[in-house]
Amino acid sequence: MNAMNNLTLHTDKYQINMMYAHWLQGTHTERAVFEVYFRKLPFDGGYAVFAGLERVIHYVQNLHFGEEEIAYLREQEENYKEEFLDALRAFSFQGDIQAVPEGTLVFPNVPLVRVIGSIFEAQLVETSILNFVNFQTLIATKASRMKGVAPHDVLMEFGTRRAQEADAAIWGARAAYIAGFHATSNLRAGMLFGIPTKGTHAHAWVQAHDTEADAFRAYAEALPEQVTLLVDTYDTLRSGVPNAIATARQLASRGKRLNAIRLDSGDLAYLSQQARRLLDEAGFPEVKIVASNDLDEHIIAGLKAQGAKIDSWGIGTQLITAADQPALGGVYKLVAREKDGTLVPVIKISGNPEKVTNPGFKEAYRIMNKATGKAEADYLALQDEVDIREGQRIKLFDPIHPYLFKYIENYEAVPLLKSIFEGGKLVYELPTLESIRDYHAEQMQTVWPQYLRMLNPEVYRVNLSAALWQLKMDLIHAHQD
Amino acid sequence: MNAMNNLTLHTDKYQINMMYAHWLQGTHTERAVFEVYFRKLPFDGGYAVFAGLERVIHYVQNLHFGEEEIAYLREQEENYKEEFLDALRAFSFQGDIQAVPEGTLVFPNVPLVRVIGSIFEAQLVETSILNFVNFQTLIATKASRMKGVAPHDVLMEFGTRRAQEADAAIWGARAAYIAGFHATSNLRAGMLFGIPTKGTHAHAWVQAHDTEADAFRAYAEALPEQVTLLVDTYDTLRSGVPNAIATARQLASRGKRLNAIRLDSGDLAYLSQQARRLLDEAGFPEVKIVASNDLDEHIIAGLKAQGAKIDSWGIGTQLITAADQPALGGVYKLVAREKDGTLVPVIKISGNPEKVTNPGFKEAYRIMNKATGKAEADYLALQDEVDIREGQRIKLFDPIHPYLFKYIENYEAVPLLKSIFEGGKLVYELPTLESIRDYHAEQMQTVWPQYLRMLNPEVYRVNLSAALWQLKMDLIHAHQD
Repeated sequence: MNAMNNLTLHTDKYQINMMYAHWLQGTHTERAVFEVYFRKLPFDGGYAVFAGLERVIHYVQNLHFGEEEIAYLREQEENYKEEFLDALRAFSFQGDIQAVPEGTLVFPNVPLVRVIGSIFEAQLVETSILNFVNFQTLIATKASRMKGVAPHDVLMEFGTRRAQEADAAIWGARAAYIAGFHATSNLRAGMLFGIPTKGTHAHAWVQAHDTEADAFRAYAEALPEQVTLLVDTYDTLRSGVPNAIATARQLASRGKRLNAIRLDSGDLAYLSQQARRLLDEAGFPEVKIVASNDLDEHIIAGLKAQGAKIDSWGIGTQLITAADQPALGGVYKLVAREKDGTLVPVIKISGNPEKVTNPGFKEAYRIMNKATGKAEADYLALQDEVDIREGQRIKLFDPIHPYLFKYIENYEAVPLLKSIFEGGKLVYELPTLESIRDYHAEQMQTVWPQYLRMLNPEVYRVNLSAALWQLKMDLIHAHQD
Repeated sequence: MNAMNNLTLHTDKYQINMMYAHWLQGTHTERAVFEVYFRKLPFDGGYAVFAGLERVIHYVQNLHFGEEEIAYLREQEENYKEEFLDALRAFSFQGDIQAVPEGTLVFPNVPLVRVIGSIFEAQLVETSILNFVNFQTLIATKASRMKGVAPHDVLMEFGTRRAQEADAAIWGARAAYIAGFHATSNLRAGMLFGIPTKGTHAHAWVQAHDTEADAFRAYAEALPEQVTLLVDTYDTLRSGVPNAIATARQLASRGKRLNAIRLDSGDLAYLSQQARRLLDEAGFPEVKIVASNDLDEHIIAGLKAQGAKIDSWGIGTQLITAADQPALGGVYKLVAREKDGTLVPVIKISGNPEKVTNPGFKEAYRIMNKATGKAEADYLALQDEVDIREGQRIKLFDPIHPYLFKYIENYEAVPLLKSIFEGGKLVYELPTLESIRDYHAEQMQTVWPQYLRMLNPEVYRVNLSAALWQLKMDLIHAHQD
């Protein structure tokens, strides 16, 4: 299955149909500007963490229609002319892409990725870009929320068995690492991306021995460095922890130490406290306690509030599927198109006011207050507006309720989008995963904590410039005449 | 990235650690029996639809540790001896696998996949098998529920942009097709699996033209067969539908016909009724109405109950992520292991009664009532029990409340598991996707409708034989002594 590796047809059929229709009417080389953004933050949270760019870059670089793809399209749609299939055969991405760096904190309606290219190529890439960015941003955001409630603990991604197929497991592991997780259990993710890997053992290891004590002893002999023992196969406090303490003594007699025990069922607050007491009384205060079992940020916060003695968290299903909201509703919308040789703004109207697009080729800025070093707002302006670039006093006003406004000066307007592709050529130096993770940690310091709160966070301002807001109103009215 | 294609390390690190520990203590060639099953039906439903087997088969056939994988493991874990890495280099799967065919209706605690092999190989494959089976079974089940509320309508999978990365999109599309969907929008899924593909056009097509009327006319000229027009870019009833009717007239003048219009926002019940009336009045009663916009089985049922005039449903996020329950909690549990040359049953105890495993190497039967042709129950028995195979009168009793029982005779006990691999060799002829889909449709006829109901279904019986139940009780008590 060679086709398994070629993602060029990893797109909706309607994209190819629209490419065909544009090609037929001769508009396929006209330039178009599309923006990727989401309208609503996931998990009722106050922020999101952008991820998916590296995957998008590899995808765009490898776009090509091979003979297998061409043959398939020919058979699928009898309308397609051979000359169109020839155009696909000659296709490669020649457009521009700008995007925010992975690990950036992002907010609703702010462009995360912008594609500027022929309508032909810009239409093709919509589906995959959304597929990658939606998922990876979702998981990075979920992981960041978990990090927020356990900032000083060790966080491990254990979700592969419950992930939504193989790609979700590895790209999800990567997204979690960006957001501050420390390790994954998935070795393939470790090998592909350089994420540290961790693993303990399963109940099956214990069941495969005559006694739990035998199982623990054998495991500690095999892997004497960093041994973590799973203590709940039969009875956590009566059997598992005492057997783990016996193993810790055996290790100590060999000059080694037991790293941790793992709790995987029962009441984790109570069991961790009791296990802590037993370990301490036995002289092993340095042995850590790892917990797993359907954990999420709410459960972790609840356990910590009750004084659970847990040092490390193994997090699976709730993280890797973003179980309480398994899709980020990111969209890819046309905001400008070439007409008579110049780019003109376009709009999509909707009976739902949130779904009306922000028209035009615009720039997104983060307004950093120079006095506090913290972000005040994100600000969308048209490309030709200079006041914001020059740091002049600007008016921030609510786009739905414009009477809510304030003026701001003494700020720096930091453009959020970086140039990734120019004329089809990659101009962006891909950061290492470690540097993305460090960058994300720095990003978390640039906004006030009230926007990062797990529950009921303050709403971060995303504002339009007066000129952009006026353009939007004008286009709405033009369509309503 | 060659490693992208090798799924051998698509496993949890602890699996390799356990393989190493078994290898070191010389138990790695001992045989073990693992079962895959889930404990609870998803979506508060009454059944699930098994899927994922084809993916599992390809995975098992292609398992091998290449030099890249070996080098990675050597660097990751200094404990691993070179001889162990040599053993991995020589590894291929030599065990037996049995599984229920894809498309089978399945119920809690019934083994769906059984792996019998050396503990070495059986441990390795756990993570990937669960990853594939959990996701694909989940999506097939979700799709089947949607099929259940719209059995006579056309169902299209449109979810790629919101899927949890690329694999989820294509394997989810395949799972939906098995469960009775008619098409996917994902061309790669279409090419890889032979699923019919469908596509309309996006709002961007309309926005890329000066007027909606121009856009519709051009699209119908490009793709005159099977044109479906999206009518909600500006105003569905005042602009979209009238423009679609004009296009239908243009097509009719060329001997063609408009296939459908698509509604993607607003109140789908009201808009579909009004659009139907406008189309009918204009003389186009044959033009279909397609609806999309965050649909699930509950919304579809509600729209149909209110008389929505919708012929075809384009379903995305809610299907492809199984949004109301994005993970099936399938597990992989050791039920028997070799000891002194014979397989002995093992158990895992838990304070949560549902998590106590059913021990032993057992067979799973579907009890088909010969008088009605319908399934009465699933029945788990030990391999050596003959009464069930011979069709003798058997007692069905509730394993939690044994006083609830009934006797049954005049039945046929159909073994659910088929042989897939024997000694590492594939002995199963992979059915075509069409035949899996047909088989699933037949399966739906073999159970009473009360088990298939969307809400509050009757609970289908999954019973243990008296001998299996007694074995379980004995093992529980043995561990509590």
